[in-house]
Amino acid sequence: MKTAIRVNQDIQAEKKKRAAAFREKLSRQGTLILNLVSSPGTGKTSLLEATAKELEGRLRLGVLVGDLATDRDAQRLAPLVPVKQLTTGGACHLEISLVEQGWQELGEPELDILFIENVGNLVCPASHDLGEHLRVSLLSTTEGDDKPGKYPKMFRTSQVLVLTKIDLLDYLPFRVEAAIEDARLIQPNLDIFTTSAITAEGIPEWCEYLEQQRQKLVTSVQIS
Amino acid sequence: MKTAIRVNQDIQAEKKKRAAAFREKLSRQGTLILNLVSSPGTGKTSLLEATAKELEGRLRLGVLVGDLATDRDAQRLAPLVPVKQLTTGGACHLEISLVEQGWQELGEPELDILFIENVGNLVCPASHDLGEHLRVSLLSTTEGDDKPGKYPKMFRTSQVLVLTKIDLLDYLPFRVEAAIEDARLIQPNLDIFTTSAITAEGIPEWCEYLEQQRQKLVTSVQIS
Repeated sequence: MKTAIRVNQDIQAEKKKRAAAFREKLSRQGTLILNLVSSPGTGKTSLLEATAKELEGRLRLGVLVGDLATDRDAQRLAPLVPVKQLTTGGACHLEISLVEQGWQELGEPELDILFIENVGNLVCPASHDLGEHLRVSLLSTTEGDDKPGKYPKMFRTSQVLVLTKIDLLDYLPFRVEAAIEDARLIQPNLDIFTTSAITAEGIPEWCEYLEQQRQKLVTSVQIS
Repeated sequence: MKTAIRVNQDIQAEKKKRAAAFREKLSRQGTLILNLVSSPGTGKTSLLEATAKELEGRLRLGVLVGDLATDRDAQRLAPLVPVKQLTTGGACHLEISLVEQGWQELGEPELDILFIENVGNLVCPASHDLGEHLRVSLLSTTEGDDKPGKYPKMFRTSQVLVLTKIDLLDYLPFRVEAAIEDARLIQPNLDIFTTSAITAEGIPEWCEYLEQQRQKLVTSVQIS
């Protein structure tokens, strides 16, 4: 058993080192990396579609999108943005090795922002650094305002919370303030956006934030 | 590494044995066990609330409800049905050991149906037998009709599919037939129900099915 534990610790340390190196490499070329995490069907791909439309001609974007099976999300995004599907073959989260491989297969383009859309899962992806600068948790109004407290690690390890599907608020018992309060109990420093990919409400504010964060990265790299 | 793999295989075999023994024990006393699995916020607890109301006075129900943290779901269900919260402390799925413990803490009551509400996660719970007779996958209309193919193992290992939140169909791009077709490509033998916990549409049919399945179990135990 001791051998098993030591082997596992070595593997985890190696993954963290690789993630840090990937972040460092892309920082130097001014590419901001975002890791998008949420339940299945919260609207990660829809948010990326809306974001790509809004930022067209303003920022160079690319996407690595993870799923257990199928390339459905890559097919949706391909008309809008350079994208590579990462298929985990059953695993419940992306790993840095798969991200590095996808990045190479994408042709290592010069980007302003690289989005990594993780497997839909509010638990396991919380424990895996993919080299991101910002982890973005999404929560849809249809999932209920009680979710942050029930899945605390994901929200605690995120810097940003994007509430999605706010166009449905009239038909749901979801209270935006309750969800935000619950999330801030876990992570007081969250930057929070309320959005609808269908009506585009909140998308300009979200995209402006992305531009600022990318500029911040470029400035910090120039100074250091 | 060989030691690590062998230890893991032994643990998995032991878990399967315990799950089979739990199923066997409750079968003998005529208790049907259902394992409810879905994404976070699909409506497992809401379905159980509606089910408990519909079956009041007809069947004796009990619930073990799993979450990473909090006892929010148990609090919701407690006015309706005997319930015990199982808290995994961060783990992404329930284990048979936690189910056995919860069952004891519930007082091992004589039930017609024991519901196990798993952690909200469309990936990891697919790999863990909790002693259930039937695994029930839930999919909400708000998650999108493309999900079965993207999370195949969960639907392949289920006997039942419950589509939830059909009261929202007018406001969503979700196509019921597309979701069912996608799910049946993976698991042709699924028994399928379309429901709304808010309007109670489909709840009587679902509860009638539960009564039939429980009767089937009792008959099969008597014959054997």
